[in-house]
This record gives sequence, C-alpha cells and structure tokens, in this order.
Amino acid sequence: MPAPPPSALAARKVAIDTYRENVVYLRRDCPVYRAEGFQALSKVEVSANSSTILAVLNVVDDARIVGELELGLSEEAFALLGIEEGARVHVAHAEPPVSIASLKRKIAGERLSRGELAAMVRDIAAHRYSKIELAAFLVATAKMELDHDEVLHLTEAMVGVGRRHDWRETPVVDKHCIGGIPGNRTSMLVVPIVAAHGMLIPKTSSRAITSPAGSANTMACLADVELPFDRMEPIVRRHRGCLVWGGRAALSPADDVLIAVSRPLSLDSPGQMVASILSKKIAAGSTHLVLDIPLGPTAKVRHMSEAQRLKKLFEYVARHLGLTLDAVITDGRQPIGRGIGPVLEARDVLQVLNNDPAAPADLRLKGLRLAGRVLEFDPDLRGGDGFSVARDILDSGRALARMNAIIDAQGRRDFDWRRPNLAPLVHEVVSDADGVVTDIDNERLARIARLAGAPNAEGAGVDLFHKLGDAVSRGQPLYRIHSASTSELEFARRLASHGAGFTIGPAADASPELPVEF
Amino acid sequence: MPAPPPSALAARKVAIDTYRENVVYLRRDCPVYRAEGFQALSKVEVSANSSTILAVLNVVDDARIVGELELGLSEEAFALLGIEEGARVHVAHAEPPVSIASLKRKIAGERLSRGELAAMVRDIAAHRYSKIELAAFLVATAKMELDHDEVLHLTEAMVGVGRRHDWRETPVVDKHCIGGIPGNRTSMLVVPIVAAHGMLIPKTSSRAITSPAGSANTMACLADVELPFDRMEPIVRRHRGCLVWGGRAALSPADDVLIAVSRPLSLDSPGQMVASILSKKIAAGSTHLVLDIPLGPTAKVRHMSEAQRLKKLFEYVARHLGLTLDAVITDGRQPIGRGIGPVLEARDVLQVLNNDPAAPADLRLKGLRLAGRVLEFDPDLRGGDGFSVARDILDSGRALARMNAIIDAQGRRDFDWRRPNLAPLVHEVVSDADGVVTDIDNERLARIARLAGAPNAEGAGVDLFHKLGDAVSRGQPLYRIHSASTSELEFARRLASHGAGFTIGPAADASPELPVEF
Repeated sequence: MPAPPPSALAARKVAIDTYRENVVYLRRDCPVYRAEGFQALSKVEVSANSSTILAVLNVVDDARIVGELELGLSEEAFALLGIEEGARVHVAHAEPPVSIASLKRKIAGERLSRGELAAMVRDIAAHRYSKIELAAFLVATAKMELDHDEVLHLTEAMVGVGRRHDWRETPVVDKHCIGGIPGNRTSMLVVPIVAAHGMLIPKTSSRAITSPAGSANTMACLADVELPFDRMEPIVRRHRGCLVWGGRAALSPADDVLIAVSRPLSLDSPGQMVASILSKKIAAGSTHLVLDIPLGPTAKVRHMSEAQRLKKLFEYVARHLGLTLDAVITDGRQPIGRGIGPVLEARDVLQVLNNDPAAPADLRLKGLRLAGRVLEFDPDLRGGDGFSVARDILDSGRALARMNAIIDAQGRRDFDWRRPNLAPLVHEVVSDADGVVTDIDNERLARIARLAGAPNAEGAGVDLFHKLGDAVSRGQPLYRIHSASTSELEFARRLASHGAGFTIGPAADASPELPVEF
Repeated sequence: MPAPPPSALAARKVAIDTYRENVVYLRRDCPVYRAEGFQALSKVEVSANSSTILAVLNVVDDARIVGELELGLSEEAFALLGIEEGARVHVAHAEPPVSIASLKRKIAGERLSRGELAAMVRDIAAHRYSKIELAAFLVATAKMELDHDEVLHLTEAMVGVGRRHDWRETPVVDKHCIGGIPGNRTSMLVVPIVAAHGMLIPKTSSRAITSPAGSANTMACLADVELPFDRMEPIVRRHRGCLVWGGRAALSPADDVLIAVSRPLSLDSPGQMVASILSKKIAAGSTHLVLDIPLGPTAKVRHMSEAQRLKKLFEYVARHLGLTLDAVITDGRQPIGRGIGPVLEARDVLQVLNNDPAAPADLRLKGLRLAGRVLEFDPDLRGGDGFSVARDILDSGRALARMNAIIDAQGRRDFDWRRPNLAPLVHEVVSDADGVVTDIDNERLARIARLAGAPNAEGAGVDLFHKLGDAVSRGQPLYRIHSASTSELEFARRLASHGAGFTIGPAADASPELPVEF
C-alpha cells in the first residue's frame, strides 16, 4: 500500500506582489502536489491553526523559490493565517466558493437576488475569488447588465462587509467627483469653505490609480495624509473637516479587492461605479453628498443621456440607503485649473485660497459652486444662497485660515505656492497653427503628465498655458511638461509629439458649450 | 541632472508555471522600475535582439527570485524572445494591444466586425492579452452575446492564426463529442471501424482537463499517443487512421491560450465551443465531421431547445467554412459504458472490440451508430447502410485487427483487457434503498472518479455496476471506486458519502427517455 503523503508543509514567504490575490507556490515535485493531483491555477484551501484561506496555486520548478516540502505564501496570506515563517500549513483541493454559482448565473444573463449579491460580495471581500473570477464578475455586471435593484443590493452588500462609521451628529457632508478630468482639485476648496461654515466634512480621498494626481496626492504636498482613524477623528471634531487618504480606513473591503482587476481592465461600469462610490461614502458615515459628474467628449461620461441615466442610478441607490444626494452634471470638456500633477495642482488650489489675481478662474468658480451646493444641505441656509455664502468665506480669507488650521493639525509640509518645487526638466509643447483652441483631450494630457512622472514624482506633470476658446498663434507654447528624469521627459515628449492633446482651428469649430448645470 | 536609468537588465529564468501567460518579475528596488513608474500587474513590453513580447509585470521584493538589475522571465518567454539566460533585455511601458478597444466594445454589448475579431484572435494567439483580459473576452463573448456571423468570423480567425494541414485526399473524416459524459469512449471504436472500411480518419484527441479521462488518456493505456506529426503521418497513410494526442500539433494557438482561462472559469459558451472545436478540426485537415451532442439533465446541454440551437450554430459555421457536418443529438442522461477512468474505459473499449459477451451494450451500440454516420460520408455507401456495415466490420474482428495494427504502429503498451491493471485500493458504494435507478448524475460521478485519482493515476476511477432502469436492493453495490492512494480514496469516498450520484426510486420516477436521435 503506498504511503500517505506528508500531511503538512512548511510555510515560506515569497515576496511577489500579487495585488491582493492570494497566491501560493508549490513545487511540481512536492509529494503533496502529486498526491492531490493539483493543477496550475487551480484553487486550493490553505489551513493553519484554525484559519483557512483560499488561494490560487502557482506551480514552481525552482528550488530557489520554495523547497520540496514548503508552501510559498505572500505576506498578506501570512497575515490572514496569523502564522510565522516555517509554520506547518495544510493544503487541499478547495471547493469553489458557493457564490460562484451566482456568478455563472450572471454570466448567463440572469438577474441576481439580494441574497446572492450579498454572498458574492462576502466571498470577494474574503479573497475567495481568483483574479479571473473577479474579471468575470466585473464584465458580467458591466454596462446595463445590472438593473437598479441589483445595483442597490450590490451597494448594500458592499457596505455590509465593511465597518460603518457613526459621527453621532448630522448632517455629515461630503463631496465626490466620479473622475476623469485632470486638475479639478475642488475638494481642497470645498472642505475648508464648508468646514469654516461649521458643517462636518471628514473628507477621505484616493490616491491616483490611473490619473496623474488624486486629491490625496495633491494634499500630500501640503500635509500628512496618512492618518490612522484615531488621529483623524479629533482633527475633524476640532476643525470640522480634514483631507486625508482613505486607504487606511478599509471603507469598502470588497471594492478594494475588485479595483485590482477593474483597474488593469480600465472597466468602470455604471453599476460598479455607483456601488463603489456610495458604499465608501456610507461606510465613512456621510449623510449628505454632492456628486460631480463631468460630461465631455473625453470625460468618463460622454453623452448627456448617459449622464442623466447615471445620475438617476446614483439617486435611486442613495435614496434607498438613506443618503441625501445632490448629483450635478458639470462641464468636463477640458481640465479644471492649470496644473496637472500633485505640486502643480496644489499651487492652483493655494492661488485660489489666497485670492491671488493669477488664480485659475475656472477652478475658483467650480469650487465655489460645489461648496455652495454642499452648504445648502444646511437647513438654516435659504435655497440658492449657498454660492454667495461660499464666496464670502473664500474672499474673506476664512477658507484659507481653515485650510491652514487643517494642514497644521494633520502635519504641515514645506510648500511655497509662489515658488512651488516643480520638477526641473522641462519641455514646451507649441501650437502648430494659428487659430483658437477648439478641443482639449483630457485623456491625452493625463497620459502625458503620467509619463512625465506624475504622481510618483510630485513636481512632475503638465502646466497648461491655454484653455478652450483661447486664440493662439503658430509656435506659441500651449503647455510645459515638467519631469524629474530625462527618460521620463523623453517618454512624455514623444507621446506629445504624436498628438499634443490640443486642437487648434477656426473659432467656428470650437467645442460647443454643454447644457450642463455648471 | 539625474542620471538616466540603466538601459538594460539581465534576463533570468523564473520557473513559475504561468499557464501560457507571459509574466515578468522585476524587483521593486530596480532603478528601471522606479524610473518607469511601473505598477504591479501592468503590461510591459520586453525586447531583446529584434523580438518583442508583451508581459504582465509582477513586482518582487525578494532577492532570491531576481536581482536588482535582473528581469525574471518564464521558460516560455525565453523561447519567444530567442535568448539565453543572462542576455540583455529592455523593458518599457506597453501600449495595450490595439484590439483591446474591440474588447471594450464587446463588453459594452456592441457587435464586432470580421476584421476586429481577426485582430483580437491574432493578439490572443501572440500572448498579448493578460489573463484578466482573456477572462473579460470570454465572459463578454459568452452565452448569446455572439451572433452567428460573429461565431463564424471568430472560428475563421482562429483557423487563420494556426497552421492548416492538407492531407491531399478527400474525404478526411472525423468524429467529435462536445463532452460532459463520463466513459463514452466511442472514438476508440469509430476510428478502427472507419479505418478498416478504408476511409482516412486521422484522429487527434485531447487529454482530460476537468474530466476523469479523455480519449488521449485512455488510448495512452494501450499505445504511445505523443507522436510528432512526422511520425503520425505515415501511420495514418498506411493504416488509414490513428488515435493520438492533439496537444503536439498546436492546431489552434488562440484556443490553447484561451483554454487556460476558460478552464478555471468552467466557461463553455456556445460560441466559444463552436469556434474551438471547428477551428481545430479544420486546422487538422478534416473535410467531414460527425459531431456528438449529448443531451441530459447533468450533461453539458440540458434542454432540447438549447441542443437544437447549438446544432444549428455548428451547422451554420461549418457550412460557411466548407466543412461537411453531421451533428447528432444523443442520449446523455448517464455515463456510456461501465468504466470511468483511463484503464477502466480502455477495458470497456477492448471488450467491445473483442466481441466479449460481457461488453457494455450501450458503448457498443453508440460506437456503431456514430461509426455508421461517418461511413455514410462515403459516396459509395447507400443512405442508411452505415450502421450495418459498421456492425459487420466490428463483428467480423476487422475492427479489432485494425486497432491492433494502429496500436503496434504508434507503439504498443502492455495491457490485458481481461485483467486490467486497476488501482488496488477500493471502496464500494451501495444503494440505500430498494427500487430502480431513476437518475445518474454525470457530474457527480466524474468528480468522484477525479478525486479517486483519475486521470493522473491511470488505474483509478469508478466502475459502474448499474445503469438507468436497473432494479437494485438496499445494500447492493452500485459502483466500486478504485484508487492508488489512501488519501485519494478517502477524498472520493467522502464525496460519495455526501451524494452517491445515483437516485433510487419507484420505477414510475425513472428519468424519461429523451426524444434524441440515438
């Protein structure tokens, strides 16, 4: 009778960044591998002590990575199992998560119930889905494949697997943009204005994932943004607002898992977007939210009908989850402000807060309008007065004072907005014709700024000299690329030479004003 | 001015089985990583000499895997680039394959053109898609998301990226089953019968992927099946047939890539199935094909309407690609034959070929009917005579003689069908009631046989003692599990104890006969 296989393997750390997927590494000549008849990429169950995780099996033929009687695990898997290097672990065939049956139903075009969506989200948050299954989930639920109620139940389920913060007062306000427009750092204006008015606005933002700067990257030029919750809470209580990175808060664990796959697919379906944004806002304890939906030919949302449908979907889900929502469709035809990249955008924001005459007017106006909308959540403020109250707070310097107080509380960093620390290597992109700027390509400029090094190199990016409708002549600079390394400058320069992202033409060709709310 | 990053890295082999995905491993502290601003799981372009491949980037924090100035590559990537260990390679941001735009259009529900599908299949076959993108492709094209012409163009594109064999005679016949039914080794009867009649039937089969045995696994008990093409061709010319593994032939390179993702997702959409099967048959040079579509409550196809739709889709695509197709919907309510597992199935086949009175009658009958259909492709054979010609060839011993000739030509292995080398550890599963077998679960029995060790352990599997309609009494054995290891026997036994896969009830509850063709 053949001997039974060894019952346990020794855990060994394999430091390969799997981006939140549990992966284990097993030698092809490991007796357990042969006895169990595993296959590469199959799902296995790894247990140690009383914990069990599901993982994808990678088969290794290399003694440098794992030994014959070892199981390689990521740092994250070690943490989930609560073990140290060398601990005894068991590996076995995994039953697929029960909710995979629902995934297959969704792929087949069926409608999922509230219970099914809840089970799927629990399995996703618990890392029980492989990357391939996550991709299948995202594609199967993309576009119009989820109806309103499915999006509601998905959002609810995503809230359910996270912790939900209770600020023990109301309203707790927030402002969010669905993204896609370079610059557009309005949160850094809205928070100090609204907080100065006395409303509670504990703003958590994301770092840039595919864009050249997120609010968290830009705020990080001015202050510490990586605050654990117990440091953030007293700041918010005292100053009525903050601007911190939300990554520490684990607001939506299922969303954190899904983003690892939706990002490389650049998949951003309406249902996913609504569930992702609203689950995080609700988990953060917000009661009132102003939502910015930019519309434009190179924005995320490109047609008014699509913007209206998205707005209605946000409103439906928010209403059923008890979140007061004011969704605004805005002009997304071009970047907002002049700078694209953390330092450049921080400069723009501080110009506005300092009432500098050179401040970008579009950023000031949009910030005031959004702040005005948020202020109107205040029951004491009469309808329509929000904008003028916001302007008073900004013009009087109270917004700047509040921003400084928040920056000091979070931990100030050196930043001189009059002489910002821009990346030293520059290249100017010039107009190749006489005429008027008729189109600006948001995506192109974002890519150029990213190749130039933003957001990893804080001072890198693009500084715009002209916006839609400006008259320019041939050879006149349209924007300046800033970069910290010659290779990055060369990447960005090369992309710009294949298409600068600006269209210059007769004034009659100018991109038409959109019938947006502002 | 900062120094430019080093322009090249040294290639190093990293033996992790990535199942046909190009993966490269780069240290987080590598200057190139930092300079380029790469992210984990992003797509990069790796070039050496004049070759370039696209790969997914895995970020490594472990000096044992790659050094700071090294790039880790799989064996496959070394082969694609045509380099040796230590060669200088360059790594850069990759532009996503152009056809990713079509993938996004498909996800959005758009119809794809012939040119778009061709470009996608070229990129897939060239390993330019990541696993996540492949999963997105499979899900987006699953179910009714591809119309008839899209399936045609997909099939055509899959033929286009492979080599197509020309046997320089016609007809070149083939027989294929869409799968899902354990046992069912009819190819091993059809090939010797049809070859003995003189028609050319160069049969390539697959190894089991998710099933307990494929034709190639079962034939491998009797003969060598891993024949390179130049050894297979003279065998086919001389004996008019063969039974070899198709994996060496690279008949459908795009399908080979897709299967790495469709398998873990167990995604088998009609469009994908048609494109996969027909592209391989056309590439193999077949001109005439009998296709077996088993229908049953636990078969792949579960409703007659679905079977009819699938049959029509196969017929449409085959007709437009010049392949003569006879698709037959067959009874798939239970396994065909008694054995499930390579050795057990080989025993069944040889019992039939030897005209042993104990041979499973259902396997004999189905083999004869399918062989009869193939024979009717012979213009000299009158309509309807195929079955009786096939029976004459089998009963006269000519089929056995031809099978022996093919086995000798491919390379005979020791196999005594009267005393087959079954795995020694056994467990009998008994009926828990008196009554009649009213249902047999194909999927359950396949899983039990797999857990018992099939197909990796050739002699492992399940030996059925009863089939639909048999009267059994409580405590009477329904089947015997064979296993080569105690742990595998225990896995299989445990699954069977949670559900044996047999339903015993009153005769009136028996699964109804299906209105199938046979």
